[in-house]
Amino acid sequence: MKMLINSPETVVADALRGLAAAHPDLDVDPEARVVVRKGASEGGRVGLVSGGGSGHEPLHGGFVGPGMLSAACPGEVFTSPVPDQVLRAAKAVDSGQGVLFIVKNYTGDVLNFDMAAELAEEDGIRVQRVLVDDDVAVTDSLYTAGRRGTGATLFVEKIAGAAAEEGAPLEQVAAVAERVNKASRSFGVALSACTTPAKGSPTFDLPDGELELGIGIHGEPGRERRPMMSAREIAEFAVGAVLDDLANVAPADGPVLALVNGMGATPLLELYGFHAEVARVLADRGVPVARTLVGNYVTSLDMAGCSVTLCRADDELLRLWDAPVQTPALRWGR
Amino acid sequence: MKMLINSPETVVADALRGLAAAHPDLDVDPEARVVVRKGASEGGRVGLVSGGGSGHEPLHGGFVGPGMLSAACPGEVFTSPVPDQVLRAAKAVDSGQGVLFIVKNYTGDVLNFDMAAELAEEDGIRVQRVLVDDDVAVTDSLYTAGRRGTGATLFVEKIAGAAAEEGAPLEQVAAVAERVNKASRSFGVALSACTTPAKGSPTFDLPDGELELGIGIHGEPGRERRPMMSAREIAEFAVGAVLDDLANVAPADGPVLALVNGMGATPLLELYGFHAEVARVLADRGVPVARTLVGNYVTSLDMAGCSVTLCRADDELLRLWDAPVQTPALRWGR
Repeated sequence: MKMLINSPETVVADALRGLAAAHPDLDVDPEARVVVRKGASEGGRVGLVSGGGSGHEPLHGGFVGPGMLSAACPGEVFTSPVPDQVLRAAKAVDSGQGVLFIVKNYTGDVLNFDMAAELAEEDGIRVQRVLVDDDVAVTDSLYTAGRRGTGATLFVEKIAGAAAEEGAPLEQVAAVAERVNKASRSFGVALSACTTPAKGSPTFDLPDGELELGIGIHGEPGRERRPMMSAREIAEFAVGAVLDDLANVAPADGPVLALVNGMGATPLLELYGFHAEVARVLADRGVPVARTLVGNYVTSLDMAGCSVTLCRADDELLRLWDAPVQTPALRWGR
Repeated sequence: MKMLINSPETVVADALRGLAAAHPDLDVDPEARVVVRKGASEGGRVGLVSGGGSGHEPLHGGFVGPGMLSAACPGEVFTSPVPDQVLRAAKAVDSGQGVLFIVKNYTGDVLNFDMAAELAEEDGIRVQRVLVDDDVAVTDSLYTAGRRGTGATLFVEKIAGAAAEEGAPLEQVAAVAERVNKASRSFGVALSACTTPAKGSPTFDLPDGELELGIGIHGEPGRERRPMMSAREIAEFAVGAVLDDLANVAPADGPVLALVNGMGATPLLELYGFHAEVARVLADRGVPVARTLVGNYVTSLDMAGCSVTLCRADDELLRLWDAPVQTPALRWGR
């Protein structure tokens, strides 16, 4: 498997050097592996720290900046960041208003962020945590007790980031983050496996002519394998799974935020064609779509495939979604 | 080869339906295959029309909107739009101030845009044309007399779009577009071939353990094949090729705009790592970088690989680059 890298050992540090070079408005420490919004601790705002294994870019480093994350801690590829890294990020962003940890529900991430929270609190930093667990495909997956955290992470980071930017206190930022997670559901599909730099060959075997419904962003097993389906059939399955689950929890009406996300290697031409089918299914089911993002946002290295994330959004969530954001991967308003 | 599509025949129309659903601020006609900025003909501005074969998304449809293109005409995958399509776009955007056609230098595109220009002029629309031919890899390629047009198209569309948005007259918009093209050079590298939906198998054969230096965005042959190289070696080769050529034409000092572009299937993690090496080579050669874009902007379906585009930018070009833009794929300011 050919890769555009120097060596498997330096992949994460090299990417952080590149991030630093491309975005001088970020403080990037490729050695300590922390990406910080410049001046994060000076604004008197609540700090937002997220992170997780690398390989899901632009998540999380690409979402650091005004209106979104204060800092991100990338671990090795598909490996949790260590507590020291998270602690360093918390210290770098705390302005005395406290810090919210946004954690995708994988056992290693949960443990290490919790340990970092204890250390930070010993240092006098108030910490709250929101756990993102939006993936309806399966429970108790390969690295997860309960549901996996995937695409909703972007919604949580954007909307909580807007609340923090407005000066909301820690409890309120944590509450809105929690609310976004509770109102969001995701479902992913793999057309191919991904290849980690360290392994150099596909992380699982997906035969020609088959796809996997309910895949995790590290290639964790989904619900089932089937003979290859059309974009229309995939959209019906994925959106159906998301809406069925969403009906059990959130108010059954109102508009949604929609993320039609590429896993990394699926061309944008295909993603937009897929979105046409997602939009059709939503229209057929009477679900109004308030905002849409189509593109590669929560990826799985070079996996081909896609995921759908929907968030039932009230006026307040929509207002915070629309608020200005200035990060490498998400940027609008000023 | 598995794809996230309904059928090879409907790929382009399906993607346009998806574009329409995701971006209600665009007028998309999936049948006529024209993407138009809403109200394009009402602003009293020069119209900017581009287009070309599909398969390079977000180019061009993703660059339609305030501050950039007025309309885009996507052809079939890797196939020129037809003159009627381009004419329809010209009519949709002309406000009496004339229209600039931005054409990548491929024989079919040149012929069909020229034919559309004749038809438009018969209808009383003033048309000027800029030909983008930035790719230094080879001359007289598979579909091209002279040099191929690739990544500089983004620079031309953004900067000319900003000039048009400011109300510059047609001759001036055309002149700045020409100036950007003359100041820009690109070089692309393939780690894998791409697969068109119609063919369903890779368009060329690139053995394991080899890469192709100087690849075209339709898989046209480059300069040479070599055993796989590191990101550092590839950056040295690609940036070297670009700078060597740029030295012959533009002022030999001053900052550059840099586009480090993914061909479609290369993870962003790798692209940023590659950019670290690009930035290092530029620093070593004493070339200051004024602005950087890293991501998938001018793609080749599911090809793995990358390209580097540099544009020598004076203060005027930088000012126009920084001007607000609101398109699906490029968005900043307001």
